[in-house]
This record gives sequence, C-alpha cells and structure tokens, in this order.
Amino acid sequence: MATVLGANQYGKAENRVVRIVRDTPRHEIRDLNVSTSLRGAFGDAHTTGDQAQVLPTDTQKNTAFAYAKLHGVDSVEDYALAVGSRLIEACPAASAAQVRVEEYAWDRLGDHSFVRRGGSVRTAVVTVGRDETHVLSGVQELVVLNSTDSEFKGFLKDEFTTLPETDDRILATSLVARWRHTGTEVDWNASYDAALSTLLSTFAGTYSRALQETLHAMGCALLDDQPGIAEIRFSAPNKHHFLVDFSGFDVDGLTNNGEVFIAADRPYGLIEAQVTRDDAPPAGDAWLHIPGFV
Amino acid sequence: MATVLGANQYGKAENRVVRIVRDTPRHEIRDLNVSTSLRGAFGDAHTTGDQAQVLPTDTQKNTAFAYAKLHGVDSVEDYALAVGSRLIEACPAASAAQVRVEEYAWDRLGDHSFVRRGGSVRTAVVTVGRDETHVLSGVQELVVLNSTDSEFKGFLKDEFTTLPETDDRILATSLVARWRHTGTEVDWNASYDAALSTLLSTFAGTYSRALQETLHAMGCALLDDQPGIAEIRFSAPNKHHFLVDFSGFDVDGLTNNGEVFIAADRPYGLIEAQVTRDDAPPAGDAWLHIPGFV
Amino acid sequence: MATVLGANQYGKAENRVVRIVRDTPRHEIRDLNVSTSLRGAFGDAHTTGDQAQVLPTDTQKNTAFAYAKLHGVDSVEDYALAVGSRLIEACPAASAAQVRVEEYAWDRLGDHSFVRRGGSVRTAVVTVGRDETHVLSGVQELVVLNSTDSEFKGFLKDEFTTLPETDDRILATSLVARWRHTGTEVDWNASYDAALSTLLSTFAGTYSRALQETLHAMGCALLDDQPGIAEIRFSAPNKHHFLVDFSGFDVDGLTNNGEVFIAADRPYGLIEAQVTRDDAPPAGDAWLHIPGFV
Amino acid sequence: MATVLGANQYGKAENRVVRIVRDTPRHEIRDLNVSTSLRGAFGDAHTTGDQAQVLPTDTQKNTAFAYAKLHGVDSVEDYALAVGSRLIEACPAASAAQVRVEEYAWDRLGDHSFVRRGGSVRTAVVTVGRDETHVLSGVQELVVLNSTDSEFKGFLKDEFTTLPETDDRILATSLVARWRHTGTEVDWNASYDAALSTLLSTFAGTYSRALQETLHAMGCALLDDQPGIAEIRFSAPNKHHFLVDFSGFDVDGLTNNGEVFIAADRPYGLIEAQVTRDDAPPAGDAWLHIPGFV
Repeated sequence: MATVLGANQYGKAENRVVRIVRDTPRHEIRDLNVSTSLRGAFGDAHTTGDQAQVLPTDTQKNTAFAYAKLHGVDSVEDYALAVGSRLIEACPAASAAQVRVEEYAWDRLGDHSFVRRGGSVRTAVVTVGRDETHVLSGVQELVVLNSTDSEFKGFLKDEFTTLPETDDRILATSLVARWRHTGTEVDWNASYDAALSTLLSTFAGTYSRALQETLHAMGCALLDDQPGIAEIRFSAPNKHHFLVDFSGFDVDGLTNNGEVFIAADRPYGLIEAQVTRDDAPPAGDAWLHIPGFV
Repeated sequence: MATVLGANQYGKAENRVVRIVRDTPRHEIRDLNVSTSLRGAFGDAHTTGDQAQVLPTDTQKNTAFAYAKLHGVDSVEDYALAVGSRLIEACPAASAAQVRVEEYAWDRLGDHSFVRRGGSVRTAVVTVGRDETHVLSGVQELVVLNSTDSEFKGFLKDEFTTLPETDDRILATSLVARWRHTGTEVDWNASYDAALSTLLSTFAGTYSRALQETLHAMGCALLDDQPGIAEIRFSAPNKHHFLVDFSGFDVDGLTNNGEVFIAADRPYGLIEAQVTRDDAPPAGDAWLHIPGFV
Repeated sequence: MATVLGANQYGKAENRVVRIVRDTPRHEIRDLNVSTSLRGAFGDAHTTGDQAQVLPTDTQKNTAFAYAKLHGVDSVEDYALAVGSRLIEACPAASAAQVRVEEYAWDRLGDHSFVRRGGSVRTAVVTVGRDETHVLSGVQELVVLNSTDSEFKGFLKDEFTTLPETDDRILATSLVARWRHTGTEVDWNASYDAALSTLLSTFAGTYSRALQETLHAMGCALLDDQPGIAEIRFSAPNKHHFLVDFSGFDVDGLTNNGEVFIAADRPYGLIEAQVTRDDAPPAGDAWLHIPGFV
Repeated sequence: MATVLGANQYGKAENRVVRIVRDTPRHEIRDLNVSTSLRGAFGDAHTTGDQAQVLPTDTQKNTAFAYAKLHGVDSVEDYALAVGSRLIEACPAASAAQVRVEEYAWDRLGDHSFVRRGGSVRTAVVTVGRDETHVLSGVQELVVLNSTDSEFKGFLKDEFTTLPETDDRILATSLVARWRHTGTEVDWNASYDAALSTLLSTFAGTYSRALQETLHAMGCALLDDQPGIAEIRFSAPNKHHFLVDFSGFDVDGLTNNGEVFIAADRPYGLIEAQVTRDDAPPAGDAWLHIPGFV
C-alpha cells in the first residue's frame, strides 16, 4: 500500500474589496467579496514542504486588490476574468485559477453617499485554465414568496407519511442559482439584469405543483431567453410557512384562511436541480468545488 | 445574609409571524419577528415554583399570532400596542408588557408574489404599563457609507497612539437607531418614512469630523423635524475601510488615491450616543432591557 | 425647544487578542476577545467635531494588545482591570472605562500545540471609574440540559392557552450569567472555577417546576458559596425540545415515552432574573450597557 | 434546441433529532442534526408537477425521527445507514439516498443532566444506492493551533508579493476532514476515536513548512493506521494570526517576540487536499454534493 496525493487547491478566501471610482465628484462604489484559488502541480508543497512553485495566498490577495484599480470592476465577471488570467500567468505550476466573487449592491444617497441595498447578492465564478475558460454568473439570497397558487398533493405515501395534501400553501425559497455561459464575449451586466428579471417573472407567473416544477420552469425560461447560457443549477431551500392552528383558541369566529403563518427555521426542504441545453458544450471543471449543488 | 429576587421578566422571543392579507386577489404581506415579555409580581415562580400567576410563554406566542388576524398589522407600532395591551390585561400579576417587533420588507412581483427587499429592518419596542405606555420606533442594519467628506484629526495622543491623522477617509456604519415618541396618537408609517428620510439625508449631507458628530447631526435633524419625538439613541459600529497599501507592489505608476479599500470585520469602533429634547418627558421603563445602548 | 446630548460612550469592540507565553518550551495560550469603551466629557466631539479630548479607538486597540504583554493575562478580570486603569489614566476627559473580555478555552495537545475546547465562554466586564471600580465575572454559551425532573403545570390560562400541563419534560438552556464582586482582591481563577462548579451542580441537582425556579436556586447557591459576590444576573433562553408525535405513524408498538425530541430554534422562551444579597453594595454603573439583562 | 433536466436531488435538511435513552435512571443523550436526500427518476415532478413517485420531505423527516427510536443511535454511521436503507426501500424511484449527520457531544453532570461540550463536531455522510453503499466519517470545527514549529519561506514571488519569509509563525486551522471507509462492517465509534487521536497527534507532532505539508502528514498517518479507510479529504482555512507590531509604541523595552497576535477573520487562506490509498476502490457517488471539498 502507498498513499497518493489527490486533487488539491489553495487560495485566499473572502477578500473584502471595496472600489471607489472618484474621477468626478459623483463617486461610484463596487463592494466585493473575492476568493481565489489555484490548482495544478503543487505536489511538492504537500509531500516535502517545498514552496518554490507556490504563489502565496497573500500574493493572491494583493492581486485581487491591485486589479480593482489596474483593471477596474466594470462587472464581476469581467473583473474575475482579469484576476484569474493574471494568477495563472504568474504561477506556472497552476493548471487553472478559480475566482469567486460576491457583489453587494448599494443605492445612491448623494454624490458620495450610499446606503447598502441588501437583498439578493450577485455572484460570479470564473475558472481560467490553460486551454479553456468558464464563467458562471449567479445570484444568491434571492428570497421569493408566492402567497397562493401553490399546491402539493398526489405524492407517494408510506407508514410514516402524515402530511395532508393541500391545494393552497405558501411557496417560498431563498434561491441560489448559477448559470454557465458558453463564451466570454458577453455584456455581463445586461445579461445579469435580464436573467434576474426572467427568473423573478417566471417565479411569479408559474402555478406550482411543487418547488421542483417552479425551478424547472425558471430554468427553461432563462435558457429560452438567452442562447448564450448553456445550463443553470439551483439550490433551493423550501422555506416552510406553516399555517397557525387557531382551532384551540376560545374566540368566537376566529378563523385562519391562509392568513397567518409561522415561518419555520429548521428543518427545511432542500431541492437541487439542473436544467441544461441539450447541445450544451461540456462543463469541464466549471463547477468544481462550488458548494451546495448536485 | 439573605438573598432577594431582583428584577426579572419572561416571555417568548422571536415569533416569526407572517401575515397575508388576501381579501382581494392582490395580496399584501407583513413579515415580522415578534418578542414579548412580562414584568411584575412573579416572585413565587422563582422562589417556590408556583406558576399560578404565570401566563405561559406559549400563550404569549399564541397571542402574537392570533392578534396578527384579530387586530392586524397596519404598522408594527400599532400591532405591538395591541399585543401589549392584551397581555397585560390577561395577566393580572404583570406590571408591564414589552413587545419588540422587527419587520422585514418585501417588494411586489405580482398580485401574490413578492421578493424580500433586504437592507434595513424597521423595529418597534412598545412597553405597556398599568399607568403609562411607551413607544420606541427604530431601524437596524441600516448600512450607510460616505466615500469622502470625512476626516479624523486633532485627537488626543499617548505613547500607544500610532494612527495617522487624515483629511479624507471612508465613513461607514451599520446603524441601529431608536427614537421615543411622546404619545401614541401617531401616524406610525408616515412618521417612520419621514424619520428614515431625515436620517439618510443628514448622513449624506454632513461633513464629518468624527462619527460622533455625524450621529449628533442626524439626531438633531430628527428632533427638529418631528416634534412628537422626545429623544433618539444610536449604536453605531464604525465599519473601518482601510486604504490598501500599494507601495510595495512593483508596478509602475500604480497609486491608490482613496480608490481601493479593504472592509475590515474586527475590531471595529463602536459609538453610542443619545440626543434628547430638553423638555422631553421622562423615559420611565421605555428603554429597559433594550440591548446595545448606553 | 433645544436638543441636548445624552449619555454616550465610544471604544473599540472585539479586539481578538491572542497571547502566547513562551518563556519555556512548554507554551501557554490565552485567547481573548476584548472590547473597550470610554465615557465622560466628550461633548465637543459630538457637537463641534473637536477631537482634542478623544483618545482614538485605534489607540484603545493598541493598548489592549500591548497590555497582553506589559501586564499579561493571569486572569481575564486581572487583565481587564489593568487595561481599564490605563485607559482612564491616559484620557483625562473620561469618567470611566469599561473593558469587556470573552475568553475561549483551549486544551493542550503538546508543548506548543492546542485544540480549542469549545463549549462555554468565560467573560469579564470591568468598569474603572475615578472613584470606584466594578468587576463582573461571568459565563456565556453554557448549554445545559436535564432530561427529566422538570415539570410545568398549574399556570395561568386564558382563551389563547393551548399548552398542556406536563410532569416530565426536557429542560434546556444556553445560559448567560454574570455576577458582581464586592471587591477586587479576589483569586479570580479560583473564584470562577468554583462558581461554574456551583452553577452546574445546582442545575443538575434541582427538581424544576419552571426554569425560573432553577435559575433562582442556582443564584442562591452561588451567593451562599461565595460571600464576595453581591449579586448574579441570568439571561436564559428556554431551548424547547418538543416530544415528536409518533401517533400518526402506522407502526405497531411504536411509542415515544420521552425518548425522541425535536430541538426547536425559534421562538424560544426567554427568562431573565437577578438574585441579590440583601446587604449588597450599590451596583453603580457596573451593569451599564451590558446587553441582554433586565 | 431543447432543454433537459440534469442531475437533481431533494430531501429534508437539518432535522434536529435529540434521542434520550432512559431505560435506566442513568439517561444517555445523542444530539444530532440529520439531513436526508433522494436521487433518481424524479423527472415528472420537475417537468409536469406529478408527485406520484415523490416521497415527501416531510415523510423523510418523520423517518429520521422514528428511526432514532426504532433503530437507535449506537453511532452516527450506523443510524445513517439504517435511515438511508429505509428511505431507498420506501421510494422505488430513488436510485440512492444520502443521509448526512452532525453530532453534538455532551458531557455528563448527573444521571439525567448534561452540559454541551462544544468543540469539534462528529459527522457522517452515508450514501445507500441499489448496488453499493458508501460511508464517510468525519469531523468539523476542529480548531487546532501550533504556537511554533511552523515556517513559510522559499515561495514563488512576483511583483505583487510583499509577504516576508518567516521561520516562526502560528499555524492554526478550523479543520473539516472526511474519510471514506471501504466497507460497512466497522466499529464506528472505535474507528472515529482512533482517527481523531491520530489526526490530533500528527498535527501536534509535525514540523510544518506549510499547512499543505501538515495536512498531508495527517492524511498519511490516518491511512497508515486504519487499513479500512480508502481516502481522506481536508478543507482547512488557514486562520491567520498576525504578530502585532509594537515598534510604534513609545515604551522602553517593549518587544513582541511571537507573544501577542491578532486573530484575523477575513481574508483567510483556504487549503483543500486529498490523500488516497493507491489501491482504493472507486468512490462512486460517495462525495456527490458534499460542499467545501475539491
């Protein structure tokens, strides 16, 4: 028996890069959380401790901050492509660099004043290899809710099944979605805005027999709308809202017809699904290491 | 020596009450986190275990949910007043009921579809006593940032002082603010909207020699604008954004003139302050048990 | 009408101070989270932006780190007293300095190797004024559970009460407790160890008719055991463990006699209480700004 | 162009199962967080909303709780195998069931009294398919620290490299490790205890030229010690402890020779690595959907 080093990667996670553009009195802000990692022929670092091929994670951090100035942040995808290309160039042993970005949106209060918007977070994961490059755009913490037009019935039952069938329930989720582009010549900001709009309008407009069906409709709508997107993957907690039982209260005429719910924390349903174009190019290592997806 | 029972209160914290108004096809949603507590003559429960005077926390929870229907949620203050009045009525041993509410905002996607807005959270703390009632309105997680017009200099120095003085820095905070109304006949929603607007515009419009000065200006503006508000209290972490040092990078012409910052997590400055009307009526127990304030 | 500046304080929160004692090959580690704040005559900073009396929070941070070496960390109380005394000395406008410390425990793996213990966190809050000094020792995140010998019955009922009475339930809490010493000449580590032991053994040994009764017994035991402690305050979430209903399962002979529970997140009961020695000296500002207590 | 449904799975996440064994006055407690999911031929639920093949996540939840009694929790692996086998049996459309368990340890205070231990969390991930079964044991939140015998030097440099080389630093990580067993006839508790002991003693006993080298040594030691383990995977944030710079303080003789550090939050290095036996049987879908690993 012998042991062998398996897959490995290393990098600097969660660099909180804030870029102010102040070329005019009307400033702009881009607020990012940037993580980088390198993969490749780093076996010596593991087996003998030799760091000669290792570009330090501290240098990766410095690169992420410097490129916010040197390249700028027109879009998270564009910025991540620049950082990834730089890292693989600077580190010959690397076979690929992965750059993951989360962007927090701000609303303007004045020329140099902003209030953080909250709500959903835009994401990008870019993998720059020696031969190919992959871009995943995405969104997380997108919390959506339909207060009706959602049912759940006709399901399989066994001796542990106690859930009643229902024709009317709240459907809510805190969506994580990522979609893979087939190329890199994309108007990233326009594509993102259109994608978010498509996902939201489809969620709102779809009668739901299960969260799975709603996610599938959302994925099909996105692929239908943007030919440059090869596939989309969802991770969707079913955020249960349980109707509160008023039957035990001794109050005349008090009813609860889908009006008062308790929002539960745990446990929660968790649905993961993919919708893919049937002629999509291979994903390669585009999804490697991205947590929370099938 | 003998031991005596000191101050005490008990209740049910963080009831996640979601109210859907569905009288027409165009639904409305109010999404609340409700905490209740009772104070008063509950010594027997502590010293002998006798629960005869104790309205269970489970009943308090039921009341919070039932009142979302019986009374409704026109505003968080109005709802909290109703729940507090009910609790003190139902529990003769209680001298006061405190109801704390956080409200999460949603934006409309369709007649029965919503997306959670994120950003700041509206709050209310209502204390209903036998003789007097207090209402605190407020906001939390209000993250604001000025990218210039902030200095910090002329401060006291000792042998551990290494901070350079600066004429230009980022000023950012995740604000918690609560303000006390002198009465209960208030258009709560209009007052809240106006208060938020005043706080934001003052933050944006004030040249800052310290976060303390900015907070003070915000407080004065609010008291000036709404005569029914007796005082305001702030808890404001100074969310440091440190200019990244590019001087060690071997790149010709690379400079960082207030353009690239690292947003730090810990430690953080923490400023707490109050601004009060000089003829404000006494606060009584309005602020009892509210964490995070002087 | 005029506005007046009310109470205020400022400081640096959550300095993560790690002290390694390496005078011999067998190292020691103290792992702290330190927050400092100053109160006093700082009105100018608020009203005119004049910082001449303000010892910067950055300097407070530097002091916290420097004193981990200059004074050392024999106990969190002792260290906090030294830092507080230094801060009030360095800042003439301050009327008092408050130093709050949390300590994370580590277990030894080797001469210079450690594994973080987890579990409860030891705390201290020291307030050093011009005339008097207060020390609060404490513990937080102390999660304890009794699997029987807990009842809840005989409580007040109204029309919203649906909770059945019970003779046997799980009693569990994640305790925060702080106790005030009457003096500062204390063997802090010995006192803390004895206090934790008293609290745990009393929790385990007390038949409970309500969480209130258990807390009261714990407080009395501590005051009985250590004459130098004037009072103790508790904040105790009632971490509900609900018996899972097996009655709907179609399995012969399957019962649940207090054997399988679901640990709930929210809502939770929240009990706050104090036990005080009847001849305790006044608390002064010992508890000012400490969140989560009556 | 047509769209196709890709990989998918669904289940109930984070069931907080607490099992009390009370056959004698001396109770036992097992405190679990259980997540289940099913994969297989569930396309109709996605494309047409037909739920006929779908065993509800609510039923999966009920099964997790019922099996804490019906099967018991001798070990997390053993319990997860039972739940997974049951789920795949109850749901003909499923090709595999995955059961993920986290276990929180408690220390005994008395016959029916316990205090939560904190610290590291034991984990298991079991995947039960129609033809094969995989078991991953593991640990998370294992925070370990060496206060010396760690260097980092000889690394690759570019124009953004500013990190000085060092012969002596703190090495600390909050380890997540999972290891795959080749079979299911294992004394799970004994194997886990031995694995934890091996990992800790190797961490403590290894001079480190990089975190990668330390992880590799830990992996090799485990595979060497337990022939029934095929591979181990690590996800290890490099929890940076930066030496605090005392040079700016105006205090005679004050030095910092590796004695006072600031524990940083973000960014952090992130190292992921695998060590595999060269004759390990294929992993199949053992690692599918496990987040945070290469």
